[in-house]
Amino acid sequence: MTRITAVYDIESPSGVAHAAAVMAGEQSTGTFVRLAAETDALRERSAARIEAIEITGESPRPALPSRREGPRYERGRVTVSWPAENVGLSLPTLLSTVAGNLFELAELSAIRLLDIGLPTALIAACPGPQFGAAGTRRMLGGHDGPVIGTIIKPSVGLDAAGTAALVQTLVDADIDFIKDDELQANGTYCPLADRVEAVTAVLDRHADRTGRRVMYAFNITDEIEQMWRNLELLEANNATCAVVCINAVGLPGVRAVRDRSSVVIHGHRAGWGLYSRSPDIGISYVAWQKLWRLAGADHLHVNGLANKFTESDAVVREAALAVQTPFAGDGAPAYTAMPVISSGQTAWQVAPSRHLLGNDDFIFCAGGGIMSHPGGPGAGVIALRQAAEAARQDIAVEDFARSHGELKAALETFRKPSIVV
Amino acid sequence: MTRITAVYDIESPSGVAHAAAVMAGEQSTGTFVRLAAETDALRERSAARIEAIEITGESPRPALPSRREGPRYERGRVTVSWPAENVGLSLPTLLSTVAGNLFELAELSAIRLLDIGLPTALIAACPGPQFGAAGTRRMLGGHDGPVIGTIIKPSVGLDAAGTAALVQTLVDADIDFIKDDELQANGTYCPLADRVEAVTAVLDRHADRTGRRVMYAFNITDEIEQMWRNLELLEANNATCAVVCINAVGLPGVRAVRDRSSVVIHGHRAGWGLYSRSPDIGISYVAWQKLWRLAGADHLHVNGLANKFTESDAVVREAALAVQTPFAGDGAPAYTAMPVISSGQTAWQVAPSRHLLGNDDFIFCAGGGIMSHPGGPGAGVIALRQAAEAARQDIAVEDFARSHGELKAALETFRKPSIVV
Repeated sequence: MTRITAVYDIESPSGVAHAAAVMAGEQSTGTFVRLAAETDALRERSAARIEAIEITGESPRPALPSRREGPRYERGRVTVSWPAENVGLSLPTLLSTVAGNLFELAELSAIRLLDIGLPTALIAACPGPQFGAAGTRRMLGGHDGPVIGTIIKPSVGLDAAGTAALVQTLVDADIDFIKDDELQANGTYCPLADRVEAVTAVLDRHADRTGRRVMYAFNITDEIEQMWRNLELLEANNATCAVVCINAVGLPGVRAVRDRSSVVIHGHRAGWGLYSRSPDIGISYVAWQKLWRLAGADHLHVNGLANKFTESDAVVREAALAVQTPFAGDGAPAYTAMPVISSGQTAWQVAPSRHLLGNDDFIFCAGGGIMSHPGGPGAGVIALRQAAEAARQDIAVEDFARSHGELKAALETFRKPSIVV
Repeated sequence: MTRITAVYDIESPSGVAHAAAVMAGEQSTGTFVRLAAETDALRERSAARIEAIEITGESPRPALPSRREGPRYERGRVTVSWPAENVGLSLPTLLSTVAGNLFELAELSAIRLLDIGLPTALIAACPGPQFGAAGTRRMLGGHDGPVIGTIIKPSVGLDAAGTAALVQTLVDADIDFIKDDELQANGTYCPLADRVEAVTAVLDRHADRTGRRVMYAFNITDEIEQMWRNLELLEANNATCAVVCINAVGLPGVRAVRDRSSVVIHGHRAGWGLYSRSPDIGISYVAWQKLWRLAGADHLHVNGLANKFTESDAVVREAALAVQTPFAGDGAPAYTAMPVISSGQTAWQVAPSRHLLGNDDFIFCAGGGIMSHPGGPGAGVIALRQAAEAARQDIAVEDFARSHGELKAALETFRKPSIVV
């Protein structure tokens, strides 16, 4: 493939075909008036092209307020393509091209970016995930099944010692993975340096005793050069993972971390709702997650089935599968990442999560689902592993629970959620 | 001020007051179930607080699809505050705090961030604009009136020689400012290095002849270390300005440029429509532009009156004024930036732009408004300066045109737009 493609769901008062032409013009050689300099040769070389148009409906009212009005608003799916040469090998310029000014066009009363297709050369020029699922297991010292994890809560407020005390409880529960909350980066009451020192002492003691090093994802989100210093701090303390709030640091921010990181990059998507909440404006995670994988994220949050936020199970399913889907294209690197499932998760959601993916290459994060187990956090972690084992053996979790006490107690404690995938 | 504040327009099936409490919880110490570790002392120190609630309406239907439903959806404006210590001095963590997970809450069927208020210590810890309007005038060798500018079009497709030829026409027209399009960064057919070399030769010759160095904003948008190399290239060529696509590089990206830049940072907001198009999800420019000023943007795009995109004149007005509004707070640096007015602009929009701001500290970018003047580009630039002079003298532009031929021709050539501010 030598062109960049992007698929959009659009609505327009002037018709989908006309709106698509305006989009292609605005995002490449066109302007509102055709210029003398826009020669045929220049257009041939650099103009965006409409590859496909499918009309999907129409409405008497615009989905979003728009300066331009019409008697009806036609909806459809359009595929636009650009010569790879327009963008070069730059992810930020790719973003400005496929998700730039076109969101503001008056010819559009709705526009969502649904998917992108990229030239192999552009994919290969990006670093991609350094570790992914296989590397994460390696960092865990060899590991089967889904990675069982949790998030430090309260999100903010604990100091370093308080965090370390909670980490002690969690490592004693034989958990695989613990992460800082996205809100806890380098606050005054819990500076990153203090937290790394206090938590590392707990992780070291536990590793000395058991031979297992729990993966702790320290939130290093900050300015670029500070993140680099944070990476040095992590390296000096044998840390294995860093949380990076991807939307807060931007694509070049993630790439800058990737370029100097010896640890797994755990991509937190705080702010994602801004892109996803409206059916009429935004970017689908199918498209969005590709960019962050290219920049170097190893783990990517995808929400969870029957979560406490607002995304439907169908959207969560699509997101989780997308993160594990290799890049298309002859000779393109796969650059798959590891989906992170979280939000209101208990033993009930392990098997449905595994079933939708068809493998164990995911991180399953539970908070109350571990801490509120009647047998304590240790039993909470065991129950989640048992649920994963049941799924692997394709045995209904309730049946498996008959011979597995911790799982049984979990299923009795936590309400069975309704999952619709 | 020792707390961070954020004002939101929200809608909720469970009532505005309840939704505000959920937002404050999710974005600070709370989780879905109150934990033992969330002590009163911890809450006192770190919890977000609801400062104000104003009910503004209700609807039988949700504005956005939401997992949670209700018989009615209450709308209102809420102010939430956080202790400054939660965030420390980090802009990315500020962003995850005021515009993070809360966009995904099921308790909300609409949420827009309208404004933010910041502690003086946080503002002062950020670099802010290095040049702003005063520095831009200095770089222009001393300059009165609005800065008259244009954008290289076609956006992409011209090679370095083609760009330089167009620049020659523009500098001969005595323009102040020229910028690369946001889509033209380092594409294969027009690599930045070639473009800098070719354009610089034109700028140098013009400066040698006239003593005036036109400000050319080269689009340096790229990965962090490449942007730094690009800055070195600019510096070696006596360049005075760099375009940075702010949404594409992120806050730490702009900050990284600011930290090593000797040139004016021209912040292009490609992708802005994603934040602004929906009345029910997003971020207002009043809030958004503060972050980019803190990170170091000198110029910030604000669209134009009667523009070719979809924003209303009222929104453009608010944005332009916001960019020039100093940060509030005792001892806080003002950190004002220079609004960039563009999109479908002609001599008709100069006076209304100046009137809304009350000063000349803005960049007025016209494309066709200069190139399509019947007297040629030189007359096009003169006409825009005459329109600015008319506004400064508070003379109606049509009256002023009687004794100013270039302006008269411009007003006859370009359709008078309808402006509603």
